[in-house]
Amino acid sequence: MLKKNQSELNPNVSVDCVIFGFDMENLTVLLIDRGKNKYPGSRMALPGNLIYNDENLDEAANRVLEELTGLNNIYLEQLGAFGDPNRICKESDREWLKSIRAEPEARVITIAYVSLVQISDYTPHASSFAQSAGWALVKEIHELAFDHYEILQAAKEKLKEKIKIQPIGFNLLPEKFTLSQLHRLYESVLDKPLDKRNFRRKILKLGILTNLKEKQKGVPHKPSELYKFNEERYLELSQTGYDNFGF
Amino acid sequence: MLKKNQSELNPNVSVDCVIFGFDMENLTVLLIDRGKNKYPGSRMALPGNLIYNDENLDEAANRVLEELTGLNNIYLEQLGAFGDPNRICKESDREWLKSIRAEPEARVITIAYVSLVQISDYTPHASSFAQSAGWALVKEIHELAFDHYEILQAAKEKLKEKIKIQPIGFNLLPEKFTLSQLHRLYESVLDKPLDKRNFRRKILKLGILTNLKEKQKGVPHKPSELYKFNEERYLELSQTGYDNFGF
Repeated sequence: MLKKNQSELNPNVSVDCVIFGFDMENLTVLLIDRGKNKYPGSRMALPGNLIYNDENLDEAANRVLEELTGLNNIYLEQLGAFGDPNRICKESDREWLKSIRAEPEARVITIAYVSLVQISDYTPHASSFAQSAGWALVKEIHELAFDHYEILQAAKEKLKEKIKIQPIGFNLLPEKFTLSQLHRLYESVLDKPLDKRNFRRKILKLGILTNLKEKQKGVPHKPSELYKFNEERYLELSQTGYDNFGF
Repeated sequence: MLKKNQSELNPNVSVDCVIFGFDMENLTVLLIDRGKNKYPGSRMALPGNLIYNDENLDEAANRVLEELTGLNNIYLEQLGAFGDPNRICKESDREWLKSIRAEPEARVITIAYVSLVQISDYTPHASSFAQSAGWALVKEIHELAFDHYEILQAAKEKLKEKIKIQPIGFNLLPEKFTLSQLHRLYESVLDKPLDKRNFRRKILKLGILTNLKEKQKGVPHKPSELYKFNEERYLELSQTGYDNFGF
């Protein structure tokens, strides 16, 4: 990656990345720790930074994510722009901004990106101003830097909405998974308990899972059957027009 | 509306509005004419302008739309940010920018907004740098200022996607409409012919239309039955969980 001069940064526009994962029990999100600060709640943030003047927004999101966490080759989808004039004015953020930005007083509009990844494929490595980077349980997050908590909530809402109509949850799972794991994933994304028997019936009825005729190994309970997402079949079915693959 | 000083404009961030309508035959969009220019293809644009430094993005979108076209009290939903570094660099746009902007060379990222309105409720009145404002047939638009053609395509794609799962098309129609008009609306949004009989069966099966037991008046053909969208029923049904109201 080309190292660029600080002066080429656009002081008014940043990107922030909401990278969701699933630890087989709960929805997680990738956070960075911006280091010691007298306001502890403000240490943790989404990976994000100013864009360069000669890169487009998608490029900036990929670069910033890689610079701060080492994650690359991730499909990032734009969530939207967040532009409250006071979004970076919290007292607890000012100190940090002054230590890191050439124009700490400039108004910054941020473009948020979202991705769903399988966490075992990615091990975050912090660099640049991130002191550490790692997966946090979404349900345990109550405060973040800037308006990042608000951005996280918006990303979660979008995920909720989308999983109701598209089989996007499979991006969060390893290739082979059990129906219980899939059930738990839907529960943690939709933020509510789902009847197990109904869930199994509905999800199998969609016709987009392949039973691998293979069982879990080395688990401390009765091993369950493994399934995989049949993407070909999904694409075939979704071509036919009016179907709905969420539930 | 408060008149603000030119110096309070943020030279780096703008908003652009894609306001869709339906003329009972075709999908339309609200455009402004920026006036004489040696590049005729570049005269027409989406209503858009720079934001003020003390307003948030949603406020800016509403203000700019009203300043240029007179339309107000419109529910605008954010479509996303468009930030190609070259998005305002077309030769055909430079001349106009120089005539109107304090910093015509500044890179501008734009946040696009979308709305669906019933055109008979809104009569555009051009002001500010808009020489005229009016509804254009989407299918007849092949070129616009800046990256507005690309923004329009993205808005159309989003509309297409959304109408498959939510009954949003009713925002484009008068309160009372015939099934033929609704059929034509879906065809023009989805950009393909839909079998009329199938359409009627599917749309009635959704259970969100009320037959008004009333017929069209003063039409040069056999009058058809009028329907209205039953929003209460839709909200009731959508509360129950897993239903799909598109098709």
